[in-house]
Amino acid sequence: MIISMRLHATKEEVDAVCRRIEESGYKVHTIHGEERVVIGAIGTGDVTSCLESLQAMPGVENAVRISAPYKFVSREFQAESSRIRVNSAVIGGDEFIVMAGPCSVESERQIMETAEAVARAGARMLRGGAFKPRTSPYEFQGLEREGLKLLRKAKEATGLDIVTEVMTDSDVPLVSEYADVLQIGARNMQNIALLKAVGACGRPVLLKRGMSSTIRELLMSAEYVVAHRNPSVILCERGIRTFETATRNTCDLGAVAVLNELTHLPVVVDPSHATGKSSLVPPVCRAAVAIGADGLLVEVHPCPEKAYSDGVQSLSIPRFEAMMRELKPYLELWKQARQAQPGTAV
Amino acid sequence: MIISMRLHATKEEVDAVCRRIEESGYKVHTIHGEERVVIGAIGTGDVTSCLESLQAMPGVENAVRISAPYKFVSREFQAESSRIRVNSAVIGGDEFIVMAGPCSVESERQIMETAEAVARAGARMLRGGAFKPRTSPYEFQGLEREGLKLLRKAKEATGLDIVTEVMTDSDVPLVSEYADVLQIGARNMQNIALLKAVGACGRPVLLKRGMSSTIRELLMSAEYVVAHRNPSVILCERGIRTFETATRNTCDLGAVAVLNELTHLPVVVDPSHATGKSSLVPPVCRAAVAIGADGLLVEVHPCPEKAYSDGVQSLSIPRFEAMMRELKPYLELWKQARQAQPGTAV
Amino acid sequence: MIISMRLHATKEEVDAVCRRIEESGYKVHTIHGEERVVIGAIGTGDVTSCLESLQAMPGVENAVRISAPYKFVSREFQAESSRIRVNSAVIGGDEFIVMAGPCSVESERQIMETAEAVARAGARMLRGGAFKPRTSPYEFQGLEREGLKLLRKAKEATGLDIVTEVMTDSDVPLVSEYADVLQIGARNMQNIALLKAVGACGRPVLLKRGMSSTIRELLMSAEYVVAHRNPSVILCERGIRTFETATRNTCDLGAVAVLNELTHLPVVVDPSHATGKSSLVPPVCRAAVAIGADGLLVEVHPCPEKAYSDGVQSLSIPRFEAMMRELKPYLELWKQARQAQPGTAV
Amino acid sequence: MIISMRLHATKEEVDAVCRRIEESGYKVHTIHGEERVVIGAIGTGDVTSCLESLQAMPGVENAVRISAPYKFVSREFQAESSRIRVNSAVIGGDEFIVMAGPCSVESERQIMETAEAVARAGARMLRGGAFKPRTSPYEFQGLEREGLKLLRKAKEATGLDIVTEVMTDSDVPLVSEYADVLQIGARNMQNIALLKAVGACGRPVLLKRGMSSTIRELLMSAEYVVAHRNPSVILCERGIRTFETATRNTCDLGAVAVLNELTHLPVVVDPSHATGKSSLVPPVCRAAVAIGADGLLVEVHPCPEKAYSDGVQSLSIPRFEAMMRELKPYLELWKQARQAQPGTAV
Repeated sequence: MIISMRLHATKEEVDAVCRRIEESGYKVHTIHGEERVVIGAIGTGDVTSCLESLQAMPGVENAVRISAPYKFVSREFQAESSRIRVNSAVIGGDEFIVMAGPCSVESERQIMETAEAVARAGARMLRGGAFKPRTSPYEFQGLEREGLKLLRKAKEATGLDIVTEVMTDSDVPLVSEYADVLQIGARNMQNIALLKAVGACGRPVLLKRGMSSTIRELLMSAEYVVAHRNPSVILCERGIRTFETATRNTCDLGAVAVLNELTHLPVVVDPSHATGKSSLVPPVCRAAVAIGADGLLVEVHPCPEKAYSDGVQSLSIPRFEAMMRELKPYLELWKQARQAQPGTAV
Repeated sequence: MIISMRLHATKEEVDAVCRRIEESGYKVHTIHGEERVVIGAIGTGDVTSCLESLQAMPGVENAVRISAPYKFVSREFQAESSRIRVNSAVIGGDEFIVMAGPCSVESERQIMETAEAVARAGARMLRGGAFKPRTSPYEFQGLEREGLKLLRKAKEATGLDIVTEVMTDSDVPLVSEYADVLQIGARNMQNIALLKAVGACGRPVLLKRGMSSTIRELLMSAEYVVAHRNPSVILCERGIRTFETATRNTCDLGAVAVLNELTHLPVVVDPSHATGKSSLVPPVCRAAVAIGADGLLVEVHPCPEKAYSDGVQSLSIPRFEAMMRELKPYLELWKQARQAQPGTAV
Repeated sequence: MIISMRLHATKEEVDAVCRRIEESGYKVHTIHGEERVVIGAIGTGDVTSCLESLQAMPGVENAVRISAPYKFVSREFQAESSRIRVNSAVIGGDEFIVMAGPCSVESERQIMETAEAVARAGARMLRGGAFKPRTSPYEFQGLEREGLKLLRKAKEATGLDIVTEVMTDSDVPLVSEYADVLQIGARNMQNIALLKAVGACGRPVLLKRGMSSTIRELLMSAEYVVAHRNPSVILCERGIRTFETATRNTCDLGAVAVLNELTHLPVVVDPSHATGKSSLVPPVCRAAVAIGADGLLVEVHPCPEKAYSDGVQSLSIPRFEAMMRELKPYLELWKQARQAQPGTAV
Repeated sequence: MIISMRLHATKEEVDAVCRRIEESGYKVHTIHGEERVVIGAIGTGDVTSCLESLQAMPGVENAVRISAPYKFVSREFQAESSRIRVNSAVIGGDEFIVMAGPCSVESERQIMETAEAVARAGARMLRGGAFKPRTSPYEFQGLEREGLKLLRKAKEATGLDIVTEVMTDSDVPLVSEYADVLQIGARNMQNIALLKAVGACGRPVLLKRGMSSTIRELLMSAEYVVAHRNPSVILCERGIRTFETATRNTCDLGAVAVLNELTHLPVVVDPSHATGKSSLVPPVCRAAVAIGADGLLVEVHPCPEKAYSDGVQSLSIPRFEAMMRELKPYLELWKQARQAQPGTAV
């Protein structure tokens, strides 16, 4: 930590800060600048709470941490990329993983038709919501357990692994029974009780970035899961909320490159929520491949204009197939780049 | 709903949209403009899902709703302001309610000392967290049940009602046993399972605006609680996330005035989280009174520089006392303005 | 400056950074932490460019400045508040200054009628645009020189000083001829050529915060004007752009309190652009007075629904009069608070 | 335009609105819904000012335009993509154009060395600032005319066309003498005087998106240039300001896809300002190619750690060369996709 004192901080104030730092188990290193005193605190310990308390002391202008607040998820902790196994598929390795399917599971016919089509087109996992966190209490809230059963049926028919959302800690056992990957939605990225519960569930977790969460906060939420003994976390960029309204959210593709520097965890992109408009999904998918994401999470519906939710951003089956064909040469380049890099199986 | 078609939409596309609208139970009203066709859908029904499906139809450029997506919480539904009774205090009436206390309950001594001091200075309710939703898994997570017991003790000693956060639906019964008002934190504003659970709990709810939630989304979350049969919702503006970093968040005081137009529910302001800096708390409190808020939620700690959390934004007891004295003449003006307005007991 | 090196920075990298710091005229102070090396640079000099170049050196993780990047405008440079004289009025002193008038000067009748009404109601200055920076080339662009002449006429009739916008450096001489205060609009807050030109113009400047400018950037723009020898700068908070769309902008009233801590320059609030809706103007004005602003800049139009621009956020004359009456007791409290504080005439 | 009236709007209010619409030259089309009256205004005219005045009328809840506020720059106006010729290079055609060079022109040696290197590596244009809009008055402000002369020298030596920034309308004649493309910087995107001046200058314009400007506002600024008779506008996405601080700005790559739908003008991406960090530049460049941009604007410096400005985001020459090699197969795919599309020479 570096603590900078105010311009006219008194000697007593400086001394009090130094004492507090030492009491917290750090060594003090004082720099007397021409204008003000700056104090370095050396050592390791509970930086965050120490930082907050120092900032509240008289004479302190600012206190900043030097090291990152997360540990297990950082590249400094583990240099090689994590490869997360989900039954047959491995995310973070040298296969680019496409997860596709409808926003909500609506009926047996809808989910079976979609599953078969996306499997044929090259998807490795089936996405679909049984529990839906809708903004309005008057919107469709999902088929719940019935939806989970239909997802299992689709899995049995196609071999696709299932990724589906769990919305609260008390549902984790139920959803774990049916899902191969548990999805934490953007609205729940900082639902601490839920993060702890999936930490203990034994299944890989797909953690979506909150719509106004920083990259650092995303990594802190992943750290919750890993610190509760689940190393299998897949991060997902799904757009952030900005002033721009031409798209539903602003797809922060640069975040993929930033995350690749900061963490060993794999990163997938959800172009459907990021843009909110189906015509923008294929170009964003190409960009996600090119920038080095590990996979995609795409909304596909057999009849988007009759979808109970998110129809406007869902690809129809023919458009999904066309996109998968179009992505092929980009995936070739992706694979060439990836095969040069090492990884660690989780 | 108003649906505007693309510039060169075909007659078939227009007809298909009209059919869909009629199938959804609305009457169609078509306007042939010089450039494009615009279609009005008249009636009442499940606008949201209808809107989404229309937007996904060929030839549609845009579809917008005319009426608000919430109902019970709107001023159109109930013109008079709601007065929410919490034991002896009434929020939304003609008393301005100050809720004060530490971020976290840390010890018996800390909470008793704070409770007595804030009661003496004029607060009507005691705030304090027993369950803490911290960004980092390595930060203090609260005393949990022990903290709730200490809050009850403080209530018995001072007569202050207790407002405290509940973080997950499975904790609602426990927290309801001890709290007079259940707080939903900003990170949980769209935790749907939790909103439904507090809807059924029989206690008033203090609902904090999510740090990147629009006013409309805040009202939709309140609508969840009310639609689940709990009309006693207090809204809380606590700052939103913007590009500005000089303050922890940007206090959207204008939102108080907007909410007073849109909803009959009372609104309180949390200047501590909104600014993140104790010196800014008193001016923001004055402004909150002047703009017409119904109360304040202020962090106070007997020794801010030793607080486990949020010390930098907590007022010490003497500074809280000074602020309460300074607020007096503003509260007089507030009362005069308020006594002219009618209200509805909830 | 504090430079933190990467976790595994080599000794050569550390040495190179130290050398560069010394070459820039600073003294080096190295701290060997348990995890990484942190380097303090002590002295005064061109921190910004030094900082940028250090950040680009191998092995450097981060370099931050300790002191603020502005100087003349800071409270550290001048502790007492600046009082800026504009003919008879003084802004930043113990009179609260209301500037009112239409968005655009449209006709002689319109500006004369407004000027007389706002003067009667207690405004001290007349605002009104002759050059209008409109988003669209097809919107009304202002009466230009003709508008300036009408403003002078209104001044002669009412004694009100004139504040009006100048949009480009080449217009500064013309506008200076007619205006008592030159306004820099939000879109031009970082128009460097214009800042330099008004620095040399000899008239007080009202500098509006850019809609996505930080408080620090606002102060840096003010520093440009002051560094070009014009100490008479009035800052104006007029709302910032956020994700919220219920208001035209988000009024960052907390920024007034922050600015009062950081700078000696006076701060006024523009509630019209901040909210974009006339019914929200009076409550925001009350809050601006209570939080300690030095004045207001309010849009008033004799017939808002016929205004060429900004009608939806303009007060009619009767509503402006009612607001001024309602503000009176708040201005009394403001005056009492203000009279305790010292100031410096500029 | 569609005007929706308030729930309890009176017949008189509705009639007044209808009269105003007719006075403005539109035909009225009224829809009596179950809850409220909605009025359509049919025709073409000055929608914006009409809209503003309608919104200020009693009983009106909301008034929205149906058609886009820009015309000449829209795809509806011209379906084929514009190909903008700059001497030998054509932007928007079937060659991907890389513009590269230092943030600022610092010395003859620096600019000549960079120009030769980027030309060799495949760039088609040289970027470099002679006038620098710096946030601080104490930072390097550019070599001005001297810088322009050095740019011409570099052009003569390498054949690269020059793109350089003009900061104010009075400098347009000077900069036009030396530059092949005039750049409007992000801070000046809504400098209306400057937009009008470059509209008349006869040279292609590279218009950078303001850091908090919407896509619609960017197109409105382009419309200013085109409406002042200069059809040669190149748009540039350079990152927008959001809450995220891990990158200097948030690169809105999705905006490229949106712009490709809305306008026929070419779009280039500036990955250097968008990310603020040189290691993120190559992945963002790959993504920009894949998403369908028409070119790149990249900062390159022979010695980034000695640059006067932006060193931390500049590529060294070897890293630029490596990136250009790495981009090759992506450019191949780009070309294949592009050759299928038609275009219009401007």
